[in-house]
Amino acid sequence: MTQVTVPTASAPELPEDGITAPAAVDVAALGSHLLGNWADIRRQARELAGRPEVQGIDGLTMTEHRERVSSQLKYLVDSGAVHRAFPKYLGGEDNHGGNIAGFEELVVADPSLQIKAGVQWGLFGSAVLHLGTKEHHDKWLPGIMNMDIPGAFAMTETGHGSDVASIGTTATYDRQSQEFVLHTPFRAAWKDYLGNAAKDGLAAVVFAHLITRGVDHGVHAFFVPIRDEQRNFLPGVGGEDDGLKGGLNGVDNGRLHFDHVRIPRTNLLNRYGDVAADGTYSSPIASPGRRFFTMLGTLVQGRVSLDGAAVAASKVALSIAIKYANERRQFNAASETTEEVLLDYQRHQRRLLPRLATTYAASFAHEELLEQFDGVFSGTHDTDEDRQDLETLAAALKSLSTWHALDTIQECREACGGAGFLAENRLPSLHADLDVYATFEGDNNVLLQLVAKRLLADYAKEFRHADFGVMARWVAHKAADATLHRTGLRQVAQTFVDSGSGKKSANYLKDENTQRQLLTERVSAMVKEAGNALRSASRMPQADAAALFNEHQNELIEAARAHAELLQWEAFTRALPGIEDRDTRQVLTWVRDLFGLGLVEKNLGWYLMNGRLSAQRARTLGDYINRLLARLRPFSLDLVDAFGYGPEHLRAKIASGAEGMRQEEAMAYARTRRASGEAPVDEKILIARQKAAAKREKRRAAAGN
Amino acid sequence: MTQVTVPTASAPELPEDGITAPAAVDVAALGSHLLGNWADIRRQARELAGRPEVQGIDGLTMTEHRERVSSQLKYLVDSGAVHRAFPKYLGGEDNHGGNIAGFEELVVADPSLQIKAGVQWGLFGSAVLHLGTKEHHDKWLPGIMNMDIPGAFAMTETGHGSDVASIGTTATYDRQSQEFVLHTPFRAAWKDYLGNAAKDGLAAVVFAHLITRGVDHGVHAFFVPIRDEQRNFLPGVGGEDDGLKGGLNGVDNGRLHFDHVRIPRTNLLNRYGDVAADGTYSSPIASPGRRFFTMLGTLVQGRVSLDGAAVAASKVALSIAIKYANERRQFNAASETTEEVLLDYQRHQRRLLPRLATTYAASFAHEELLEQFDGVFSGTHDTDEDRQDLETLAAALKSLSTWHALDTIQECREACGGAGFLAENRLPSLHADLDVYATFEGDNNVLLQLVAKRLLADYAKEFRHADFGVMARWVAHKAADATLHRTGLRQVAQTFVDSGSGKKSANYLKDENTQRQLLTERVSAMVKEAGNALRSASRMPQADAAALFNEHQNELIEAARAHAELLQWEAFTRALPGIEDRDTRQVLTWVRDLFGLGLVEKNLGWYLMNGRLSAQRARTLGDYINRLLARLRPFSLDLVDAFGYGPEHLRAKIASGAEGMRQEEAMAYARTRRASGEAPVDEKILIARQKAAAKREKRRAAAGN
Repeated sequence: MTQVTVPTASAPELPEDGITAPAAVDVAALGSHLLGNWADIRRQARELAGRPEVQGIDGLTMTEHRERVSSQLKYLVDSGAVHRAFPKYLGGEDNHGGNIAGFEELVVADPSLQIKAGVQWGLFGSAVLHLGTKEHHDKWLPGIMNMDIPGAFAMTETGHGSDVASIGTTATYDRQSQEFVLHTPFRAAWKDYLGNAAKDGLAAVVFAHLITRGVDHGVHAFFVPIRDEQRNFLPGVGGEDDGLKGGLNGVDNGRLHFDHVRIPRTNLLNRYGDVAADGTYSSPIASPGRRFFTMLGTLVQGRVSLDGAAVAASKVALSIAIKYANERRQFNAASETTEEVLLDYQRHQRRLLPRLATTYAASFAHEELLEQFDGVFSGTHDTDEDRQDLETLAAALKSLSTWHALDTIQECREACGGAGFLAENRLPSLHADLDVYATFEGDNNVLLQLVAKRLLADYAKEFRHADFGVMARWVAHKAADATLHRTGLRQVAQTFVDSGSGKKSANYLKDENTQRQLLTERVSAMVKEAGNALRSASRMPQADAAALFNEHQNELIEAARAHAELLQWEAFTRALPGIEDRDTRQVLTWVRDLFGLGLVEKNLGWYLMNGRLSAQRARTLGDYINRLLARLRPFSLDLVDAFGYGPEHLRAKIASGAEGMRQEEAMAYARTRRASGEAPVDEKILIARQKAAAKREKRRAAAGN
Repeated sequence: MTQVTVPTASAPELPEDGITAPAAVDVAALGSHLLGNWADIRRQARELAGRPEVQGIDGLTMTEHRERVSSQLKYLVDSGAVHRAFPKYLGGEDNHGGNIAGFEELVVADPSLQIKAGVQWGLFGSAVLHLGTKEHHDKWLPGIMNMDIPGAFAMTETGHGSDVASIGTTATYDRQSQEFVLHTPFRAAWKDYLGNAAKDGLAAVVFAHLITRGVDHGVHAFFVPIRDEQRNFLPGVGGEDDGLKGGLNGVDNGRLHFDHVRIPRTNLLNRYGDVAADGTYSSPIASPGRRFFTMLGTLVQGRVSLDGAAVAASKVALSIAIKYANERRQFNAASETTEEVLLDYQRHQRRLLPRLATTYAASFAHEELLEQFDGVFSGTHDTDEDRQDLETLAAALKSLSTWHALDTIQECREACGGAGFLAENRLPSLHADLDVYATFEGDNNVLLQLVAKRLLADYAKEFRHADFGVMARWVAHKAADATLHRTGLRQVAQTFVDSGSGKKSANYLKDENTQRQLLTERVSAMVKEAGNALRSASRMPQADAAALFNEHQNELIEAARAHAELLQWEAFTRALPGIEDRDTRQVLTWVRDLFGLGLVEKNLGWYLMNGRLSAQRARTLGDYINRLLARLRPFSLDLVDAFGYGPEHLRAKIASGAEGMRQEEAMAYARTRRASGEAPVDEKILIARQKAAAKREKRRAAAGN
């Protein structure tokens, strides 16, 4: 509970529904609520991230930064901070959700450290853990865990990023020697952008098409030593440094290529596909397509943790900008002597508070994603449907939250003016480092298209020949399983057409059911429209079908975005009853309304065009949002304080209270001067006085006549 | 005229209005048209910017980068590239428009170089030129021009950025010694973010409140020596280095403060205000307010040149991303053997082509701004109204183009995937450097508010008691002066309500008059609405008036944005008839339509809510835009080639043709392998064959029964 600057320009009104205006936010309780299921691990991780030893230093050269991060990895090992997901018998905790919760907080120390750790333990180590079997675990995991074997995750190629199935690297089984021969057939098949590849990696998990007995069994993963102890490439292995990047320069990204490099047959990570000594291929999953997606599915934690890291980075940026906006004053408006506090300007509220609301939504949604992830990886909820839901949810949320982080950091940077551009105020490096989160572990547009395809598939399954009765039954069915963690297409029971009365518009708009209906209806209508348009595609030649799909690609991706936003809104709404303090719950409900109505405002054209909102009602929406902003403004500091990031995490001079002190000093100087009578007279005032005197003189002269 | 990859997925249709589909764009002619009035100077400047000597090098430390840029400034002097605005008698050319045209192209070499040059000659030198008088010119300009006197432009303070009138530094006249005493009374009054202040500056033009005989005459500019020849601060002067920034690290930004520093009376740059030996103040401009704005107005060229630089940076980014998107292939869709070219995806078109259209609009608008600027500064069009129009236009366009550059560079970076994040592909540093353009030389939000106030003032002047007859006369009057370079509020002759027939929607939407009416009507309706809401403010106490204004701040700023977009659209439309080649003009007309209709789509909610567009018509808009994208796609390379930036300007490996060669190599490999019969069989195909064989066997067995 922070002291609140009373806004001068736009005082919050009393809510019109007779609710007593909330007095305060219970920051501590809200903070605990936000920490979620793995609160203790998050607290430990934040304590760690607050130590200068693990933090980034601005202005290091790439070489220095890489060295610093490499040595920090060993510090993480010694701190016991990064092994939670590994098996207990090897010193881990078999704790998958907790592992991610802790890992994603590293972004607050230095995103380079987070990503380098993610490469080592989240990608390279995870691939050995999830795609390998016991023999591999025993042989390599201890060295991976303790950093004896730094390794690269060699999936992406220069020619293929998000389309992993099309990579060009091959691993051809040689029966004679019982070896796989790894080969890079052309330049586009070089592995690229791999952390640990430019400098530190001694080994790599290499993804390649497994070929045995003349059959290509699709992409599999192989454990491949790449450097000797002197860090020289082993025979047949070559590579390049990716060099300087837009950010994350503590990670040594690089390229690798293989010229008929031979590895033992048993280096195939063989959980989902194996080759016997005689070259016979076998797999527990008969369908090559399903096998491929199962293998890739084990790596979903990358997306899950990027989602969490993006949310954490957004929280840091907003904490900085909102603290500053509560102290910084600029321009006189309400008074000639006191300038306005930035956050009292409606425009400044419009810039920061909706992004704060989205960050809350993304935070609650991430917590649900983490639960879903833990359910699948711990085996407690591990059906095929669970896994598919997890992948859809991760793709949907990672796209939105990484874009949101970039947008938010940029707006925060601008909202802090020139100060926001200084490295000492943190925001520039945060943007530079987070930038690539939007395209790695799956390009956001590609991920949203995956989500769209899932929505289309649901639509095809449920509605292809649906009349209204079927739809209603489906809705009832969906409602019955409470929709928690269900990410597929949802539908409201009936098409919803706004009757359009302008009366009680505010009550109407803030109603939870209204918001749910508006958001849900948009998703289902968009999917339905696209689904109907694409219905004929299945009977078309491939090129025509592709062209038809392409004509609807943009609207499909927008439908997926709308779906992901709905998931965030639902997660936020589900989190509200868990807030026990009444005042806090009221404030958070306003934050949720701001998020939900902001989505409606953003897509107002759609709602009007499709008769879901009357023009009359639509005209009240902007005003209502402005009123929400004014109501929330006094709680803005509480709402960022609840994120729980201290000065050791924010590390921004302008968020340290220095600005407030400068303002105090300047105002005290002005007060003293005015009181002393020594202040010079403003020329404008002098002129006004002279004019008044001249007028008086004129009047006197006239009276004297 | 480049060879065009024929799109496979969405072939452009014939325009439905019977126009023959354009065959080609005359790239050379379009390029010349874009170069504008000062084409030769632009060509010279681009030749210069293409030299490695003036270009940035990635990965330099801050110290190295600063040294490199400092020495590059001397190279610019030797190249005779930066003195065009200075007086002929001192070796300049008195060419104001041409000077900016040349200067803004420096951004293509290195934005740090552009900004450092801008500090030295555009701000520091310009202040001496425009605020000083002949004595000052003779004394200091030669040294400023040849870099003997590197200097800072000390306007901004830690406590005050865009609100210059409120700075705290004072310059008090001491009659005894005939000196001004410069003083920084508190920490917030330190000068901050000043280029040349951290390291190189020997002098500064310092803005301070001029106080003489007990009267504060407002902000004036003073020439103040700050360092001796050994680069040590002179007595009473102190400062700090701003240190590392998010970008522009070749510029040595820093802070300055003054402890009763004495300078001769004649160091006051006294064109608009002077102090006699006895302390008497005099000015050719009686009103302190008008005097202040006149002084600041001389510095509008900063905004003008940032507008041009932002447009240039957007062109570079789009050239890189669109060249790459024409070569890069990803995912199979229309065929199993050939992947799709990125720009054939509708989504990719949606990401890049509307931004290309906006860049064209911003480019044509900038050229008009430059003409307006040249008219005012050369004295050929230099009325008060001309100056006010120039300031409004500069504020409006600079805001939009600097934001647009950031948005465009970011989208281009993401559209190039992981490659876009590598320094070798240029986009990351372009974003980092351009970032601060959105907040310096006037924060964009503050600038748009200035524009809004101008619109409100126009509205108040013209419409306060207006009936329809007055409005019609005003429109006629405005139409008579052709609206070229008039930036104030414009109004269409009658309120425009869409009658809503869905027929011929495409013809309706692409009609120039429709677009003009839709865009114009939105601006005037928004201003009118806000103006009416604020009408009572003038009779309110200050605090109440401020609160009322604040309640409408966001919509006012949005109105200003709509106005600025309209100005861009008008400039684009005015540029079309100048394109002589019929096909080229047709293509550019589509680009203009894409820009105009994109603005309508972005604000569709407003148009529907206010009855300006029928729901039926609105529903056709998205499809029509998609069709425009497909039509423009084959000309995308031509449209960026016309920008005229060569490899020496783009300096991005992915835009060098390397990607196309890699694709060719990979495809050739696949072809050879298929032809050889040695390619392994895909397991999926094998399974399909086995299933078919099993089916045949079963049938055979059944037949045998």
